[in-house]
Amino acid sequence: MTISINLNADMAEGFGAYDVGDDAGILKIIGSANIACGFHAGDPRVMRNVVREAKRLGVTIGAHPGFNDLWGFGRRRIDMRPDDLEYMVAYQIGALQAMAAYEGERVTHLKPHGALNNMAAEDAEYALAIGRAIKAVDPRIIYVALAGSEMEKAGRKLGLPVAIEGFCDRQYDDDGNLTSRKIAGSVIKDAAVATRQVLDMVLNNTITSRNGKKIKCKVHSLCVHGDEPTGVATARAVREGLEKAGVKLVPLTEMPLD
Amino acid sequence: MTISINLNADMAEGFGAYDVGDDAGILKIIGSANIACGFHAGDPRVMRNVVREAKRLGVTIGAHPGFNDLWGFGRRRIDMRPDDLEYMVAYQIGALQAMAAYEGERVTHLKPHGALNNMAAEDAEYALAIGRAIKAVDPRIIYVALAGSEMEKAGRKLGLPVAIEGFCDRQYDDDGNLTSRKIAGSVIKDAAVATRQVLDMVLNNTITSRNGKKIKCKVHSLCVHGDEPTGVATARAVREGLEKAGVKLVPLTEMPLD
Amino acid sequence: MTISINLNADMAEGFGAYDVGDDAGILKIIGSANIACGFHAGDPRVMRNVVREAKRLGVTIGAHPGFNDLWGFGRRRIDMRPDDLEYMVAYQIGALQAMAAYEGERVTHLKPHGALNNMAAEDAEYALAIGRAIKAVDPRIIYVALAGSEMEKAGRKLGLPVAIEGFCDRQYDDDGNLTSRKIAGSVIKDAAVATRQVLDMVLNNTITSRNGKKIKCKVHSLCVHGDEPTGVATARAVREGLEKAGVKLVPLTEMPLD
Amino acid sequence: MTISINLNADMAEGFGAYDVGDDAGILKIIGSANIACGFHAGDPRVMRNVVREAKRLGVTIGAHPGFNDLWGFGRRRIDMRPDDLEYMVAYQIGALQAMAAYEGERVTHLKPHGALNNMAAEDAEYALAIGRAIKAVDPRIIYVALAGSEMEKAGRKLGLPVAIEGFCDRQYDDDGNLTSRKIAGSVIKDAAVATRQVLDMVLNNTITSRNGKKIKCKVHSLCVHGDEPTGVATARAVREGLEKAGVKLVPLTEMPLD
Repeated sequence: MTISINLNADMAEGFGAYDVGDDAGILKIIGSANIACGFHAGDPRVMRNVVREAKRLGVTIGAHPGFNDLWGFGRRRIDMRPDDLEYMVAYQIGALQAMAAYEGERVTHLKPHGALNNMAAEDAEYALAIGRAIKAVDPRIIYVALAGSEMEKAGRKLGLPVAIEGFCDRQYDDDGNLTSRKIAGSVIKDAAVATRQVLDMVLNNTITSRNGKKIKCKVHSLCVHGDEPTGVATARAVREGLEKAGVKLVPLTEMPLD
Repeated sequence: MTISINLNADMAEGFGAYDVGDDAGILKIIGSANIACGFHAGDPRVMRNVVREAKRLGVTIGAHPGFNDLWGFGRRRIDMRPDDLEYMVAYQIGALQAMAAYEGERVTHLKPHGALNNMAAEDAEYALAIGRAIKAVDPRIIYVALAGSEMEKAGRKLGLPVAIEGFCDRQYDDDGNLTSRKIAGSVIKDAAVATRQVLDMVLNNTITSRNGKKIKCKVHSLCVHGDEPTGVATARAVREGLEKAGVKLVPLTEMPLD
Repeated sequence: MTISINLNADMAEGFGAYDVGDDAGILKIIGSANIACGFHAGDPRVMRNVVREAKRLGVTIGAHPGFNDLWGFGRRRIDMRPDDLEYMVAYQIGALQAMAAYEGERVTHLKPHGALNNMAAEDAEYALAIGRAIKAVDPRIIYVALAGSEMEKAGRKLGLPVAIEGFCDRQYDDDGNLTSRKIAGSVIKDAAVATRQVLDMVLNNTITSRNGKKIKCKVHSLCVHGDEPTGVATARAVREGLEKAGVKLVPLTEMPLD
Repeated sequence: MTISINLNADMAEGFGAYDVGDDAGILKIIGSANIACGFHAGDPRVMRNVVREAKRLGVTIGAHPGFNDLWGFGRRRIDMRPDDLEYMVAYQIGALQAMAAYEGERVTHLKPHGALNNMAAEDAEYALAIGRAIKAVDPRIIYVALAGSEMEKAGRKLGLPVAIEGFCDRQYDDDGNLTSRKIAGSVIKDAAVATRQVLDMVLNNTITSRNGKKIKCKVHSLCVHGDEPTGVATARAVREGLEKAGVKLVPLTEMPLD
């Protein structure tokens, strides 16, 4: 039986005259794009352009909502009332749906950005607020979540499709969480190491923590990066490694979410 | 044969801790709401709340997009590239569609706000950009326009449904344009005068300019105001005058757009 | 010997078309104004206008910096790097200094707004960042702080003038902190009760907690509110009560900061 | 007698996670920096860092205020009331003064950015509003203006010091205005051509228009660019050409403004 996997990446994170990340380069590698929606980054033109290119390349379109904090690029934790958060996420999904409509496409998944992702992973109220936004706007949208996170729980509780995300280029702690970026070596910059980690995840459903602990985990989507110097090269190596191993690379909409 | 007319008003123009206009009061009078979409005013919570109340009262939901200029409340002219404008309007429509989805409703009309409305009335490029946004996101959305404006022309050129808007509480020049607010008396504050003007428009398809000229004009929707001291009282008087005259008040979606 | 006290209030918290609070009313009652600086609220025009009126009435000018969060009105906690916070506060002080320059005045005190005030009261890093901003821009600026807070400590550590603030219309816990707004009765709406609390603070250097505990505390400035329905009336009653008791009402710059 | 000239460049135009232009590279070449003030670009951290580096290199600090339009990078014309514009400019000057205070420095010149510069060059109301802001905040600040522009006139009318600016890398029309960027060749990318144009301006007080017309013009400051691929190289060539010709490169504060 062929094993499938999805690659995703954050993109459309420019704003006006500002440009970041190699969107064109990374879109050729991934199956699904997490598109910034204008709050932590992104503007209508950038969103429109990335949606057009994603469609052309057969990459599915996902929302990448963030805090209303362009200065902080969505990386600063903000205390919001859960219902404000819910409506803010719904707003961003809708904005992206309008851009997807230009191409006759749908928004098919959602992955929160930066500090919102971190907070929602730990905080049930935030995770549920995001889930309720999805459910209200389009309950077919796949909620992308770290295994065991409050987002996974919220998605299942609300009856939403949930995809578990793994990271190509990040080390893991023994409890399955990502090792903090503050710890040396937590970001994997060696493409060969990243590829080995990914193959182990995809073929053996296993993550090896930085202490050597084997963690069982079935992931549906692997996050790669286009906004760091080594990101695109690592992403390409990971993709090639998966292809050589006979793994089929698919959009998230084609992944069996078991 | 019963004559029908639609009343519309701008609303949801608060932001965060700031509140303006008597949305609750005006929603009981009108048939269709022009809802600010978060750029010149409005935020996700305000939009959500107004959509809920509109649904409850049978008021249809329209987008009221504006420039990205909260400080200027969308009243300052901004020179934009037409495609930036187009995507900005599409973004705002989509954001409101997400809020409408909470109530199982659609966005059924669009009326630009403030300086954007003024510029698009005069400038074919702006008018077409807004029309293309509508067409891309949902071509059933009714484009609300002043008679003879570039917006009316753009809507017809693009094959969109177009509704002609009249004003209850504004004087007209001989050429059918609104008299500038800078001219004394241009804003009608006497509810009886406003009601007479409206009845003439609706029953006789006639506007009498401030110089006494009779202008032939078929309007589909009449704009009332909830954000000025005398607005709600005038709106109520106009509604009562129309009802007494046997005119049926309907949502814009039920107006024959001939 | 005559006892003196200062009254302060937050103001200039409108933005563009949005107006909040009775700035004109409260300016006639207080000695020192905390002026919003355009981040959580306020804009250049509002700041300019309040500065002009403050000068006319002999009210001294203070900065009221907040988080860069207009939507949340500066009431949402945001995790910032301390140096970003420091520069953000310096920026806001400078902006207000420019407005003060129109009237040949100086910015003579600073009181953080909302969530920034709450966080800096508890967090030494935030409190010091604000203090460093003051020290860099103008070390004569008085740092207004709750007694015993990290802000008081930071101000003293940095050698800045510190004024201790008391609240007219808020209950206190036994430890000298303000009772949470979530607890019923924590906001004092009865002007007579507020006046008694204030007289006890000013004449006896004593605060009585809501449990009846007597807390010794010397305050230099009392906060009144112009943005709540009962605020101005309470402020006026407090002022009259103080005047009847022979207390001299002065700008913060004339208070002995012992 | 030694001839002096000043080189200026726009900088600090990043925002949060976004970085643009080679500030470090260009600061080594110029005598005076035009520092974005947080409205069209720039944030408190970027401003702080550029001010520190400018001080270290003996580069004087100028304000580079722009419209409140980060999305448009200040390149979109916005219709503002002149007094709103005035206070907005004063606000930005003050914010930068606070950053300059960190280094014991003053803001010594001002040059508007982008669309604000273009509008103020043509529109006396805009030009005067900017001038009044300078006069109110610090009348020693040098108003940098194109020769013959409304800004030059406004500065002289208000009694402000005025510096006339020339452009290294832009062609001129016969009337002394810059050739529109829409016309091919209007931006000079050949460093040798730019250097010849500059030497003619500085040594002979002459600009040769693209049609060959000789225009008499005394410039005090030459604008170079660090935000375009060829900008820094051209700037360096221009500087070297001036040095070889025995011209002394000075901060704007040391230029005789005759």
